[in-house]
Amino acid sequence: MDAKEASATDLKRPREEDDAAAAAASMETENGDQTKEPACFSSVIPGWFSEMSPMWPGEAHSLKVEKVLFQGKSDYQDVIVFQSATYGKVLVLDGVIQLTERDECAYQEMITHLPLCSIPNPKKVLVIGGGDGGVLREVARHASVEQIDMCEIDKMVVDVSKQFFPNVAIGFEDPRVNLVIGDGVAFLKNAAEGSYDAVIVDSSDPIGPAKELFEKPFFQSVARALRPGGVVCTQAESLWLHMDIIEDIVSNCREIFKGSVNYAWTSVPTYPRHVSLPFNIHGVIGFMLCSTEGPDVDFKNPVNPIDDSSSKSNAPLKFYNAEIHSAAFCLPSFAKKVIESKAN
Amino acid sequence: MDAKEASATDLKRPREEDDAAAAAASMETENGDQTKEPACFSSVIPGWFSEMSPMWPGEAHSLKVEKVLFQGKSDYQDVIVFQSATYGKVLVLDGVIQLTERDECAYQEMITHLPLCSIPNPKKVLVIGGGDGGVLREVARHASVEQIDMCEIDKMVVDVSKQFFPNVAIGFEDPRVNLVIGDGVAFLKNAAEGSYDAVIVDSSDPIGPAKELFEKPFFQSVARALRPGGVVCTQAESLWLHMDIIEDIVSNCREIFKGSVNYAWTSVPTYPRHVSLPFNIHGVIGFMLCSTEGPDVDFKNPVNPIDDSSSKSNAPLKFYNAEIHSAAFCLPSFAKKVIESKAN
Repeated sequence: MDAKEASATDLKRPREEDDAAAAAASMETENGDQTKEPACFSSVIPGWFSEMSPMWPGEAHSLKVEKVLFQGKSDYQDVIVFQSATYGKVLVLDGVIQLTERDECAYQEMITHLPLCSIPNPKKVLVIGGGDGGVLREVARHASVEQIDMCEIDKMVVDVSKQFFPNVAIGFEDPRVNLVIGDGVAFLKNAAEGSYDAVIVDSSDPIGPAKELFEKPFFQSVARALRPGGVVCTQAESLWLHMDIIEDIVSNCREIFKGSVNYAWTSVPTYPRHVSLPFNIHGVIGFMLCSTEGPDVDFKNPVNPIDDSSSKSNAPLKFYNAEIHSAAFCLPSFAKKVIESKAN
Repeated sequence: MDAKEASATDLKRPREEDDAAAAAASMETENGDQTKEPACFSSVIPGWFSEMSPMWPGEAHSLKVEKVLFQGKSDYQDVIVFQSATYGKVLVLDGVIQLTERDECAYQEMITHLPLCSIPNPKKVLVIGGGDGGVLREVARHASVEQIDMCEIDKMVVDVSKQFFPNVAIGFEDPRVNLVIGDGVAFLKNAAEGSYDAVIVDSSDPIGPAKELFEKPFFQSVARALRPGGVVCTQAESLWLHMDIIEDIVSNCREIFKGSVNYAWTSVPTYPRHVSLPFNIHGVIGFMLCSTEGPDVDFKNPVNPIDDSSSKSNAPLKFYNAEIHSAAFCLPSFAKKVIESKAN
């Protein structure tokens, strides 16, 4: 079974298509036509998009919808792009916000530079998922990088990003990028041993059928594909919600990665996420950062600052800097005790 | 004009009492009676409380309501307590969430210990606002403190907290506490010069009629009431929303406080707030930390760790620790440039 395909099917958010409020609601499309609004818009109020999920019962985060720009169904998931009232354009996959133009910088910059600034001279980088191109845009800032492989399962995400989010999809224009449309798990299994300096996992979910992406076999594939002293960064949800799951992930990583194992977190208002990861809610996103046996990696003290001038196509960094890199590893007391006991 | 009273009047959130969804909605009270639901419950969906405000247009954060426990109208504001599905009991003033049982620790611990752990041996502390008692609970952890004055304008907030949030209101039980029900601005004007080691401002809003609490005359009152090298901590909204306002606050503080002027931030999922402060949205809360001329205060490197065992009535700290204290001063690049240019 393809883990991501199953994920897209099973992690759909509950829809309340019979909600009384939905009956009267309709959305204006880009062409000005009145059409039935997407099902996910109907569960709270007409004209608002509400993100609800069994993963965060009893809560909803809503953005006002000005116009639906795109609605499609790929082989893997429902894809929607809408113009929000205050967050710019918003990408939604299976009812879950993936990115907004207003705050995507925080997520993209942190998931990329936390690993790449922690090792000297990264040359070969693999991105699993990340089909919007934002992580590629950030990897491209590193002048030392010679090759950027990306394996994204859903071509529609790439196409939609290129059409509606040019400042994010600009990452695909870098000549060092090799894009493969396919399953990331299989791609990693076939990767040459010790071939990558860094792997960034931007498409996974620790609960449900895709949970294998947070379990030992997947981490073993990652570790195998990394050179000695290579690094991986993978999303790891919100400290506020699922400490029990984080605890398991940290334990698994501790078994597989014989270098260092760390948890970091940062703030992103609308919790941007990628392919079916409904976890980073509460304005907080977590990351697991691990290194393989080899040259020591001290993630908390970055050794490889970004030369922001190296990438002509990029605007300056908006969020990441060396201080916020180190600060991301300082955890609240309730989380620190649990994570440090598992990581050391 | 009483600033807080005006604030309570003018900063009400928009209500959509005519919303079609509201017509059918009713809430069960603690006694099991069916009553008309509070107006603020009707704007999104029946049975859900939605926080909406002109301060964050186009967004709503909703919590599922299980039961309304209290509904009242004080001289200053509407007061509601409800049992949420997943955040425990929630206190709402004028339609804005003030605290939830689940995450109040982060806010209360940070606004208190950021200033008190930055100076040696604090003895006399003033809290403006903070009528739920949570800040008092945290101040009481400091064994060196001999006197804790609090000036809260709304007695109903104190009473409701004692009735429904005993783990927060426990702060009032400390024998060092002197509670005054009254206007904080007037209280500060009458305070003896140089009488406090620390002032914590837990009831203000930099926009609208209460904006004077973030302007020079108020800060001058605070500075006058502090001893040389004394410290103030005041809430200062979200970096993600209102950098222009933060810029002004930092400029004002820089003029008044001749010691150090710093901005810190932290993460709180439901953005707990106190009396009429609709700012800390996006899971992020900011704080201004300033010191008066006198012994140097280096807020980023706390000199006064908490002896957690000193307060028998308190559970251990959940959020605050020395690392997260320092990390709170590391700002994203977009904010760092602006704030540092004004603060130095």
